[in-house]
Amino acid sequence: MSAEDPGFKAALHEARQGSSEGGVPIGACLVSAEGKILGQGHNMRIQKGSATLHAEISCLENAGRLPASAYQGATMYTSLSPCDMCTGACVMYKVKRVVIGENKTFVGGEEYLKSRGIEVIVLQNEECEALMQKFIKEKPKEWYEDIGEEQ
Amino acid sequence: MSAEDPGFKAALHEARQGSSEGGVPIGACLVSAEGKILGQGHNMRIQKGSATLHAEISCLENAGRLPASAYQGATMYTSLSPCDMCTGACVMYKVKRVVIGENKTFVGGEEYLKSRGIEVIVLQNEECEALMQKFIKEKPKEWYEDIGEEQ
Repeated sequence: MSAEDPGFKAALHEARQGSSEGGVPIGACLVSAEGKILGQGHNMRIQKGSATLHAEISCLENAGRLPASAYQGATMYTSLSPCDMCTGACVMYKVKRVVIGENKTFVGGEEYLKSRGIEVIVLQNEECEALMQKFIKEKPKEWYEDIGEEQ
Repeated sequence: MSAEDPGFKAALHEARQGSSEGGVPIGACLVSAEGKILGQGHNMRIQKGSATLHAEISCLENAGRLPASAYQGATMYTSLSPCDMCTGACVMYKVKRVVIGENKTFVGGEEYLKSRGIEVIVLQNEECEALMQKFIKEKPKEWYEDIGEEQ
């Protein structure tokens, strides 16, 4: 598991896309046990006025309706440590592994994922962190809104 | 807190609406600390081919972008015990209370909600349960898909 992993590259591509749109620059990609990309997406809070389309939710939504078996052995790649909602989505669909771009900006439900038997890998990728730091500096209000925190 | 509560009535109304559309008959309603309905919605898996629009997510999405303060003291009403994803959404937005129509059909993240300081009330409403039992009998595959379980 490294920054060269196709699933991670797709998640980072999505984060960059979110950044270029002026949105919260977080991307995600869901890869099946067989290595097929099932879906990918990025945070759409600003672009769609959405309170729920975090990167992982956007990714799962773009993957579309799938039977439970499709998520078995799957890996969710996300550029930032997942919030409680996205953590819960990974738990509900029982993905095998969550690969996180960075968790210096924000630490979400990593311990809860582990407690539910999901492997967690943190890459501490500098570009993921730089995208977030730039966004938070420019739009702090939107960032805190995105994670349900008071500024 | 009873079946006459406006928030619960709105959630039940949404569940009935979902049923009339042939969808997973689960509804939700978010009510502010001041008693104002911030949003309501129902499961849209079948109607929109959505893997993430569970009732509570649909409700939060319909409530739109809100600052963290809007969720303070809020109550999420849902006709069925919330799955891990919807549990996580309630945790992330820090609602004060989750009122559940019934948990005989399915028990979701109730203990986790409590562990995170969120009050949980279960009404055991017969109509909520009847809607689910009818749906599961008619469309078992869709129900198991909705909660990420093998049939």
